[in-house]
Amino acid sequence: MITVTRPFIPDRRRLQHYLDKACDSAWLTNNGPLVAELTERLEDFLAVRNLLLVANGTIALQVAFKALAIQGEAITTPFTFVATASALKWQGITPRFADIDRQSLTLDPSCVAAAISPKTSAIVPVNVYGLPCHHNRLEQIAREYRLKLIYDASHTFGARHGGRSLMALGDAATMSFHATKLFHTVEGGAITFRDRDIFERARKSINFGDATPNRSDVDALGINGKMSEIHAAFGLANLDVIDQIIQRRQAINLEYRRLLSQDLVFSVPEDQDNVSYCPVLLPSEECTKNVIAALEASSIHARRYFSPALHETREFGDGSQCPVASDVARRILCLPLYPDLELAEVKRISEIVKAALN
Amino acid sequence: MITVTRPFIPDRRRLQHYLDKACDSAWLTNNGPLVAELTERLEDFLAVRNLLLVANGTIALQVAFKALAIQGEAITTPFTFVATASALKWQGITPRFADIDRQSLTLDPSCVAAAISPKTSAIVPVNVYGLPCHHNRLEQIAREYRLKLIYDASHTFGARHGGRSLMALGDAATMSFHATKLFHTVEGGAITFRDRDIFERARKSINFGDATPNRSDVDALGINGKMSEIHAAFGLANLDVIDQIIQRRQAINLEYRRLLSQDLVFSVPEDQDNVSYCPVLLPSEECTKNVIAALEASSIHARRYFSPALHETREFGDGSQCPVASDVARRILCLPLYPDLELAEVKRISEIVKAALN
Repeated sequence: MITVTRPFIPDRRRLQHYLDKACDSAWLTNNGPLVAELTERLEDFLAVRNLLLVANGTIALQVAFKALAIQGEAITTPFTFVATASALKWQGITPRFADIDRQSLTLDPSCVAAAISPKTSAIVPVNVYGLPCHHNRLEQIAREYRLKLIYDASHTFGARHGGRSLMALGDAATMSFHATKLFHTVEGGAITFRDRDIFERARKSINFGDATPNRSDVDALGINGKMSEIHAAFGLANLDVIDQIIQRRQAINLEYRRLLSQDLVFSVPEDQDNVSYCPVLLPSEECTKNVIAALEASSIHARRYFSPALHETREFGDGSQCPVASDVARRILCLPLYPDLELAEVKRISEIVKAALN
Repeated sequence: MITVTRPFIPDRRRLQHYLDKACDSAWLTNNGPLVAELTERLEDFLAVRNLLLVANGTIALQVAFKALAIQGEAITTPFTFVATASALKWQGITPRFADIDRQSLTLDPSCVAAAISPKTSAIVPVNVYGLPCHHNRLEQIAREYRLKLIYDASHTFGARHGGRSLMALGDAATMSFHATKLFHTVEGGAITFRDRDIFERARKSINFGDATPNRSDVDALGINGKMSEIHAAFGLANLDVIDQIIQRRQAINLEYRRLLSQDLVFSVPEDQDNVSYCPVLLPSEECTKNVIAALEASSIHARRYFSPALHETREFGDGSQCPVASDVARRILCLPLYPDLELAEVKRISEIVKAALN
């Protein structure tokens, strides 16, 4: 069976090396040395600062929203994984959907501007598939209307634009390090903050507002948002070989492009591709379903990432019209992409896709 | 250095056995077989049903509150770890504090009844140190005022009262399996629900409202509240030897009682002790501070669990008067208790405590 993604499993001895550190010291969680090491190495690798590791990508969003005091409404994209919107709604913030543009698949700034209401306190763009958003215009709108700009940058691992890490933009940017991601910590996530004070507030908030032993007061609100040393151990073992992981994904990605780019549209331009996903846009929803069915018949599971568009769901539908997102969501398909996938399998998948297209 | 607690580290080969299962199958998270196995074995061991494993004890509380639609105000105890109150406040529910009674150190039902307002939607008692609450009276009040009853049962591992597991009471009961707990999964927690439908709602809510592949709609709200297979592996390795862990803690606890019960008050009656903590009540706050200082001088770190009482903190203070909680919080001290603690160390700690009392 071939799935759309498959967690990378680090070399066992390498993993053991890090796990032993945690077990030998009996320091299994609570901001230990492995989380500290992973933080430092990720700040280097991603060229960011004020990076905070957290328990998962949803907590990253929730902690960022709380640290930046988001309330009322936030404008976001309907073309994303459900977590972007549900992290808002869970905390009592209403997600308002603005449409995407066909090129970048990210928020269309003119649609964002049109969706602003007196209750709006934030814009939450998503760098879907690691694609850059219209940052300059979004920042301009945020400044003009005094809104916070918080990127859901869950897919941006390693992605840069104009020389800058996509994780370094906005008031905050959040990532997911879920097992299925390009880089993972089993479960995990991170937030980067522009402002050091907000970072400090968030840092305290993931440890119950700062649960130091024998404190004489509690003066801040918090939850448990901590990444464990054990999950950090997986992250360190994976980060040790991240270049190999990326190279392997690139090879697979190139093979798909070589075999399929005459037949269908790759949603991520080759020069912007951080190989986090391999999304292709099919001519119609019917065709998308045909391709899925043909692949399923060979036990190959492609995924309709990200469908349905959230403004069309029962949980989040609010009457918004986002025709581009609706159309793209109906025709998008992510092809299997993970380091262990053999090139021969890529060829077989591509042939099935091609045959189903005709 | 002796700390108040120290995570139990499972036998490495036993741990490896479970970790290999996850790594061999590349199933690292998302409700995998280890989480399923741990769920089943914990339901057996704790004599509960409808048990849902989650990422940590705070998420357990938050998911329970959401599944039971708690809003407005909830009445809880100020004599608890900050998470009980902060989990409410983070989700926009105002914690209202009612006093505890001196005997059980848990919510005094008459104080709960007096604190009910038209906005109250829940009572959140805490089984502090694994102690039973006044369940029958609390349930009566909850029924009379149509309130939900949600136990923060974070300390109750293995605790029973009147033949029933303390985890099996109320509309829901939550636990923490943090590394420092009697039973741990590094980071983790659990919720049990009385009602199967509410359990199902919560189960979906910890996976983004039910993130099944290629779903055609989203019809429920969720977050990422999942326990990973890796954390479940630690839980299984620990559960394999839980009887030994408990026996060892009992031996230490008995030694403290033998050496110190003539000199000070143990807050948990011997026949109700699930050996989750070893709290003693000192004659005065000054005396408590003296004992702490004397222990610190020998690099022994006792903890003022749970001080300050939350109604007296800047973050949660609301003018409530809870004189019993205030008094107990000033005089309580938890002595070091973990399986690796040597009886010779227990003796040394006890001698230092005794000397500081005079």
